[in-house]
Amino acid sequence: MAIMRVGKAEIRVMDLEESVKYYTNVIGLEEMRRSEGRVYLKAWDEFDHHSLILQEADSPGLDHIAFKVENEEDLAKYEKKIEQFGCTLKRVSKGTRIAEGEAIRFELPTGHQVELYHKIERVGTKTGDWNPHPWPDGLRGIAPHRLDHLALTGDDIDTVTRFFTEVLDMFVSEKITTVDGEQMVGSFIYARNGKPHDVAFIKGPDKKMHHVAFYVDNWYDVLKAADILSKNNVQFDVTPTRHGITRGQTTYFFDPSGNRNEAFASGYITYPDFPTITWTEDKIGQGIFYHRRELTESFAKALT
Amino acid sequence: MAIMRVGKAEIRVMDLEESVKYYTNVIGLEEMRRSEGRVYLKAWDEFDHHSLILQEADSPGLDHIAFKVENEEDLAKYEKKIEQFGCTLKRVSKGTRIAEGEAIRFELPTGHQVELYHKIERVGTKTGDWNPHPWPDGLRGIAPHRLDHLALTGDDIDTVTRFFTEVLDMFVSEKITTVDGEQMVGSFIYARNGKPHDVAFIKGPDKKMHHVAFYVDNWYDVLKAADILSKNNVQFDVTPTRHGITRGQTTYFFDPSGNRNEAFASGYITYPDFPTITWTEDKIGQGIFYHRRELTESFAKALT
Amino acid sequence: MAIMRVGKAEIRVMDLEESVKYYTNVIGLEEMRRSEGRVYLKAWDEFDHHSLILQEADSPGLDHIAFKVENEEDLAKYEKKIEQFGCTLKRVSKGTRIAEGEAIRFELPTGHQVELYHKIERVGTKTGDWNPHPWPDGLRGIAPHRLDHLALTGDDIDTVTRFFTEVLDMFVSEKITTVDGEQMVGSFIYARNGKPHDVAFIKGPDKKMHHVAFYVDNWYDVLKAADILSKNNVQFDVTPTRHGITRGQTTYFFDPSGNRNEAFASGYITYPDFPTITWTEDKIGQGIFYHRRELTESFAKALT
Amino acid sequence: MAIMRVGKAEIRVMDLEESVKYYTNVIGLEEMRRSEGRVYLKAWDEFDHHSLILQEADSPGLDHIAFKVENEEDLAKYEKKIEQFGCTLKRVSKGTRIAEGEAIRFELPTGHQVELYHKIERVGTKTGDWNPHPWPDGLRGIAPHRLDHLALTGDDIDTVTRFFTEVLDMFVSEKITTVDGEQMVGSFIYARNGKPHDVAFIKGPDKKMHHVAFYVDNWYDVLKAADILSKNNVQFDVTPTRHGITRGQTTYFFDPSGNRNEAFASGYITYPDFPTITWTEDKIGQGIFYHRRELTESFAKALT
Ligand SMILES: [Ca+2]
Ligand SMILES: [Ca+2]
Ligand SMILES: [Ca+2]
Ligand SMILES: [Ca+2]
Ligand SMILES: [Fe+3]
Ligand SMILES: [Fe+3]
Ligand SMILES: [Fe+3]
Ligand SMILES: [Fe+3]
Repeated sequence: MAIMRVGKAEIRVMDLEESVKYYTNVIGLEEMRRSEGRVYLKAWDEFDHHSLILQEADSPGLDHIAFKVENEEDLAKYEKKIEQFGCTLKRVSKGTRIAEGEAIRFELPTGHQVELYHKIERVGTKTGDWNPHPWPDGLRGIAPHRLDHLALTGDDIDTVTRFFTEVLDMFVSEKITTVDGEQMVGSFIYARNGKPHDVAFIKGPDKKMHHVAFYVDNWYDVLKAADILSKNNVQFDVTPTRHGITRGQTTYFFDPSGNRNEAFASGYITYPDFPTITWTEDKIGQGIFYHRRELTESFAKALT
Repeated sequence: MAIMRVGKAEIRVMDLEESVKYYTNVIGLEEMRRSEGRVYLKAWDEFDHHSLILQEADSPGLDHIAFKVENEEDLAKYEKKIEQFGCTLKRVSKGTRIAEGEAIRFELPTGHQVELYHKIERVGTKTGDWNPHPWPDGLRGIAPHRLDHLALTGDDIDTVTRFFTEVLDMFVSEKITTVDGEQMVGSFIYARNGKPHDVAFIKGPDKKMHHVAFYVDNWYDVLKAADILSKNNVQFDVTPTRHGITRGQTTYFFDPSGNRNEAFASGYITYPDFPTITWTEDKIGQGIFYHRRELTESFAKALT
Repeated sequence: MAIMRVGKAEIRVMDLEESVKYYTNVIGLEEMRRSEGRVYLKAWDEFDHHSLILQEADSPGLDHIAFKVENEEDLAKYEKKIEQFGCTLKRVSKGTRIAEGEAIRFELPTGHQVELYHKIERVGTKTGDWNPHPWPDGLRGIAPHRLDHLALTGDDIDTVTRFFTEVLDMFVSEKITTVDGEQMVGSFIYARNGKPHDVAFIKGPDKKMHHVAFYVDNWYDVLKAADILSKNNVQFDVTPTRHGITRGQTTYFFDPSGNRNEAFASGYITYPDFPTITWTEDKIGQGIFYHRRELTESFAKALT
Repeated sequence: MAIMRVGKAEIRVMDLEESVKYYTNVIGLEEMRRSEGRVYLKAWDEFDHHSLILQEADSPGLDHIAFKVENEEDLAKYEKKIEQFGCTLKRVSKGTRIAEGEAIRFELPTGHQVELYHKIERVGTKTGDWNPHPWPDGLRGIAPHRLDHLALTGDDIDTVTRFFTEVLDMFVSEKITTVDGEQMVGSFIYARNGKPHDVAFIKGPDKKMHHVAFYVDNWYDVLKAADILSKNNVQFDVTPTRHGITRGQTTYFFDPSGNRNEAFASGYITYPDFPTITWTEDKIGQGIFYHRRELTESFAKALT
């Protein structure tokens, strides 16, 4: 019984066609299927049917974030623990969305909608599983390997973090605390997959999305991503730099609806016994933007 | 109850002082402690007391490979499963080695000695866990982040692989099979930590060690490693290249006792539901050395 | 008869000891000699005695920029052409500065002091010229290969550019013009050495220095430079990005006196027949900061 | 009056169509024009009409190597010096080849055919010279920036080197000498363009070609080149490594006719006063292949 990874995110976009063009040509995802007002996309190195769902809506932001569990039976076990924690929960029946099985959907203490799922059509990576080459031909744009993590904002970081560690048995790689250490103002949460984070929470208004991050392999890929963004006249939020938190290399920018995206590379490896790293709030500038060492105005403001 | 990672390896070296000089200056590990005929070393980005033990002996090779389990109670549970599988097993009492707790030690179907352990002194990484910088000053040599994996040879790859999946609940990222698919001639096994492999088995004589691999972050680090090896007149086995299997970037070389070492970077991420990749034996050249696409003579011969 | 490269720059610094610490530990130059109020420094991959002279003064900025000519006899030839152009010129006798021969010194149309020299003590690079290794041990900080270029501001860019092309027989790799193409507001000037620029002029107040740039090999070296700057709490001006002009990868920061420094990597190769590239002023943001595509406030203001 | 660079090479290929497919899809050059039995190709970052001419023939190898001079008048001046040196020389009239002006053609002491030319149609780079992006869309294969250098073999390295320094006023970046220093067995020759070499001569049979090298920007581009070669089943000669001589990063492989190609990155900068580096023959292994530190059998044998 375990959460394996953040497997999917459904985000709201304003102009579906424009967003599909952006996510397939600039980000370089592959369109898999469409249904009424929804487009299903996947990254070339993912083996499940889709990882990003674009939902046409009047305002940008997060519809839900979804974590894939190891076994179908885990859904019922987590359901009990989630309800005991006090979250309102409902079942999402098979077929609600294309290529997916049943899921459970609940609201976090921060107001975000989360789903746990197991069944999803397996389509395999672009390189395949038979004497594969290391990367496929025909890649477009930034061509990230996968959906890597989401960052969300919320008022009570302590409680939402406790939910992920106690109910979903996930772990905290890094936390930002008030200088007196009393209260968490940021937490970076990972499953048993060696990643620095699958989801991060940052002190801010509930229910808001800070960014959706896609994984690229290295610092040259971050440069290539930034070049591609300029060639496509995409608006930057933060030009290439390194995070103090996770050590990862990064660049932030906005999709056509104003949802912040990130191309993220490298970072350290985590395990269940990884000693949680603490950042004190006075050092948050260096934690988030290791070089600039100051938060940009947009960091706290540009939320969807 | 889970295996977290390959946490330690104890290898036999012929000249202890020469080996310590090599592993601390060329590889760039840190000497932690010494006991009679043993030196305990760790990599700067590891948080446990040591990951490599050098044991002075008359012949090079592997003393044992050790996997860290998540909870102390897991030792007893695995003990039962290991014995049911038919391996001879004994307890290694606390204090047998410096800074370690109790461990269980058993022999694999391939004759290699394996230990499972939980308790080991926590010393923390060189960068620490309080507003840390991304890398520390004062690094020497290749300065890998961690002990990454070991590759061992054995006659019956199918059985030893079955042991790791059924008894230790680990997973197979890639396997090399005879062209008819009947028999495994190579298997790459990982724990729930996102790594392409924690241990690999390659068809060959039982009880032998193929290589000990240390993790570096990227392809430029592999170039730096190769430059450092030449500056220190270390004998190469394979100059910088890419593996088809794991996609990782690599260079192979020998320690003063003839144990093969590897500097390994990148590679894809794995999960429990990662679809095992198959390489057929006719493509083993491209699987092991993706550019050269042929096995070197030394590949099958240089074993310790 | 030819200018080979920008070989030296003498800059004014406020606190000599603090500046020496910065340029030897953070930048990673080597202190060669000292004389009254002056410290002579060189980069590891340069073969002449020094390339940067720190002069203790009450205000930061440029004392002079110096170009090395191919033959001693060239000094007299250039002297005639320089005086014909209308610049006031004087001879700097041998011994005025440590390890240097005679030089000629004159004032540019933009008010900057320039010297041409040939003789300077040859000390050789840190790697030497006998079966050399690709890089030396014992490097500190950013450890750039060389002083690469300076950027200066001036009112009349057309005239100063004409001086460099007509009198010094150098070439223009890129120019920024007013949208109507009438007037140059930036020009990037190179000698016959394949570099994108040895000196650049940007529209602004006469006699001012915009930055001194040091060459690093690649984009990972720019990341390492930025990390080192943060580890040493150095104030950034621009975090890692790419220039549209020269395509080079860069990061800007300030020395303790407020002189802007740059770590610059890569860029294209130039020849005498390189077709000058034109940037129109409306695109100057993308020309200078290819990703951000806007000039920072400090760009035009932070001059010394 | 100066040689600017090695601007063109005409090589013999056995199967024109197969070679064009290789040089346009695997190397990634662009086909410009065709004439009877010849195909003219250029790299995306070159501004002249072509840099590589494929000539259909019964045996592979070099037809001629051509250096571009700065002014049309230089041809006559060099003509005199070349004849004084004792080389047989003839004029190649305008129109002999597509898009080229007049050239002079002569035979080196090593029996290779060389041309000097000035006029060639200017087509500009793929990125253009007006507010250009750093790299173009639609690149294929290795997509090198330019033809970088050729390496040729010959018996009398001293004499051919003296020709290049005395007659063509080029310079020697590195030389390999017999251990007693009496005789050159290798020399690396550059024009005033900052490159480590435009042409190299290695002791071996006269008139033979060792390799044609194309410039890529960095070590990740060398990895990408090697991956592309494996994806196209191209036969390697040397997998990614570093040269001691020039410090450049490299990989060697063969075109369909057996002509050796190289993808070459980085290297140091040269000037007319660059102190020539000496390698003694006992260290030639480390000079040519800095990591392996031994010459491969094919190094001296695989000549066309
Ligand atoms: Ca827990
Ligand atoms: Ca299992
Ligand atoms: Ca001129
Ligand atoms: Ca000469
Ligand atoms: Fe992020
Ligand atoms: Fe390995
Ligand atoms: Fe600059
Ligand atoms: Fe070469």
